[in-house]
Amino acid sequence: MGMNKEIIKKRVRSIRRELNNRKIDCLIVIKPANVTYTTGFLGDDSWAVITRSKVYFLTDSRYTEQARVECPDCTIVERTGLMAEAVGRLVKKLKSVQTVTVEKSISLAGFGALKKHVKARLKAVADVIETVRSSKDNMEIKTIEAAASISTQGLEKTLRYIKPGVTESELAGMLDFQIRKLGGTNSFETIVAFGPNASRPHHQPSGKKLKQKDTVLIDFGAKYKGYCSDITRCFVVGRREVFYKKVYDVVEQAQGAAIKMIKAGVKMKDVDAAARTVIKDNDLPVYGHGTGHGLGLEIHELPFLKVESKDMLKAGEVITIEPGIYIPGKLGVRIEDDVLVTEGGSRILTRKCPHSPLLLSSKR
Amino acid sequence: MGMNKEIIKKRVRSIRRELNNRKIDCLIVIKPANVTYTTGFLGDDSWAVITRSKVYFLTDSRYTEQARVECPDCTIVERTGLMAEAVGRLVKKLKSVQTVTVEKSISLAGFGALKKHVKARLKAVADVIETVRSSKDNMEIKTIEAAASISTQGLEKTLRYIKPGVTESELAGMLDFQIRKLGGTNSFETIVAFGPNASRPHHQPSGKKLKQKDTVLIDFGAKYKGYCSDITRCFVVGRREVFYKKVYDVVEQAQGAAIKMIKAGVKMKDVDAAARTVIKDNDLPVYGHGTGHGLGLEIHELPFLKVESKDMLKAGEVITIEPGIYIPGKLGVRIEDDVLVTEGGSRILTRKCPHSPLLLSSKR
Repeated sequence: MGMNKEIIKKRVRSIRRELNNRKIDCLIVIKPANVTYTTGFLGDDSWAVITRSKVYFLTDSRYTEQARVECPDCTIVERTGLMAEAVGRLVKKLKSVQTVTVEKSISLAGFGALKKHVKARLKAVADVIETVRSSKDNMEIKTIEAAASISTQGLEKTLRYIKPGVTESELAGMLDFQIRKLGGTNSFETIVAFGPNASRPHHQPSGKKLKQKDTVLIDFGAKYKGYCSDITRCFVVGRREVFYKKVYDVVEQAQGAAIKMIKAGVKMKDVDAAARTVIKDNDLPVYGHGTGHGLGLEIHELPFLKVESKDMLKAGEVITIEPGIYIPGKLGVRIEDDVLVTEGGSRILTRKCPHSPLLLSSKR
Repeated sequence: MGMNKEIIKKRVRSIRRELNNRKIDCLIVIKPANVTYTTGFLGDDSWAVITRSKVYFLTDSRYTEQARVECPDCTIVERTGLMAEAVGRLVKKLKSVQTVTVEKSISLAGFGALKKHVKARLKAVADVIETVRSSKDNMEIKTIEAAASISTQGLEKTLRYIKPGVTESELAGMLDFQIRKLGGTNSFETIVAFGPNASRPHHQPSGKKLKQKDTVLIDFGAKYKGYCSDITRCFVVGRREVFYKKVYDVVEQAQGAAIKMIKAGVKMKDVDAAARTVIKDNDLPVYGHGTGHGLGLEIHELPFLKVESKDMLKAGEVITIEPGIYIPGKLGVRIEDDVLVTEGGSRILTRKCPHSPLLLSSKR
């Protein structure tokens, strides 16, 4: 267990550089993914405090033992009362710290508690660690690839259960179980949607049964060693309906057009537009969600690819590309892959999860 | 799909009463469980705005279709840009509203965005809907019981897989799968801990294999129609070690002592103390976590039973009682049940999930 100590040290150096740039002396890290990134800890309900010389890890008795294993580079502080009180006591000891900065994702209530218990100037800042996290190191890329590989194998093992009579919920459960058996967990709640249910991009699996002739959309992802993957695939059972096939092909083309554009330095809104244009040009309805998002320790993280995106892609970013076409009451098709941005172009980390087999027999 | 319309109306009336008491004209509901409670919506990424006459439901195109089915009593507003912008546009139309109040669980960043986009006085408030939610109505109690029943059946079906060689991760996956097959999802990530791993109250299932003679702790819960259950059970495989058995008996006595005290009007800290005293009196280490927590739409919600609790139990509250004994490197035992507080005492909603079978054969 525990991430490589050298990797954690390197990350803390990068974070301290970012803190120096922003003239921050002492950062309270509250977001679980940021705590994991900074300390190596894979549990919950714990904060980190980064100063110029140390990383403190604040947790309670449920996690102290785990922290000793996972965070050998941190000074572990076991709290009993409120987190804000523990921070207050710690800051009191840090004589050189005049201003304490906390992550802006803290709740208003949590910020109020800090104000009460911390005897120092209090400020808030957004996206310090998120910015460092957006470019992945080699270990992270390999781990995301491993997560994608578990997803792919889990889906393959689940394919044989796609047969008339199975419910959305059972299929989701089978896929989740396969992921577990392969050593992963879910990076989010698996979406399985039959037929017209797929027109709801975030449909929750129901007791609906698969028909003799039907369609299936599965949006899912394995999480492995803290890192997420995110894949959407569509299947046709028993027949290849002409209109569905046309919609599928257009979504695939839209995705291809977006992926082709990916390269460090390219504007994200241009990648987004590439996918939308293909759908518009085919007189089909353009999706209301973004074209993609970063992923890593969180399933949705920087950067976000949408119409209003202002930034450019950077090498080392791992993003989804996931255009879709949704026609309420009729159908929904989405294809989603995870892509690494490189200096020269891109690498598809989910390439081993084929877009086909599109057509599954209903006799199995 | 969709909750009973009358129930939603009754809840909104209770919330409006609470808002009147606190002199709040217009509340922005941001916490997912509170949005579900107020509107019936079971998806994500949506807010509600409650005024004196209407409930507005703000979502994006991924969820509009679902909202039309689940929230027949709301005015649905589909947003494309930022949530804060959508709130700003809506408030502009609500001529009579001078002050807008938002839930204090909003992030500091989200509050900043509202300040920018909402042209009205902005305030924050804690626990308005949480307070209403803490007393469950009959539908909620029945749904939690149904969730507990799925948990119990799922655990029973999983018992036969508890055999030497199985990993913590596989067992967790099998239990999750059984819950899915029974129509539920997980109310939180299942904990399965073998042997000394159980001394970490929030251990994450690993690739560790069950030995011929071993112990198993399982902390898990099915979620059903939005409502959570939460159960912990311990098993012994292949042998009944004297010390483990003693620890188990003390935990069971501690839990019994706490449950016996439960009744509307009793101080929560007294219930908490009842469990701790049994453990202390047996010269065993007292647990560092709380004795219990409310559960419902969230796995942890009001009220919280701990040493420093100040309130009294109220009829209709559903709480866990979960004392434990943890000896690092050696063992961990916790027993957890879900209990309804009544005027005259309590009712155990997880009573069909037996504490035994404590001893499982290793030959199966």
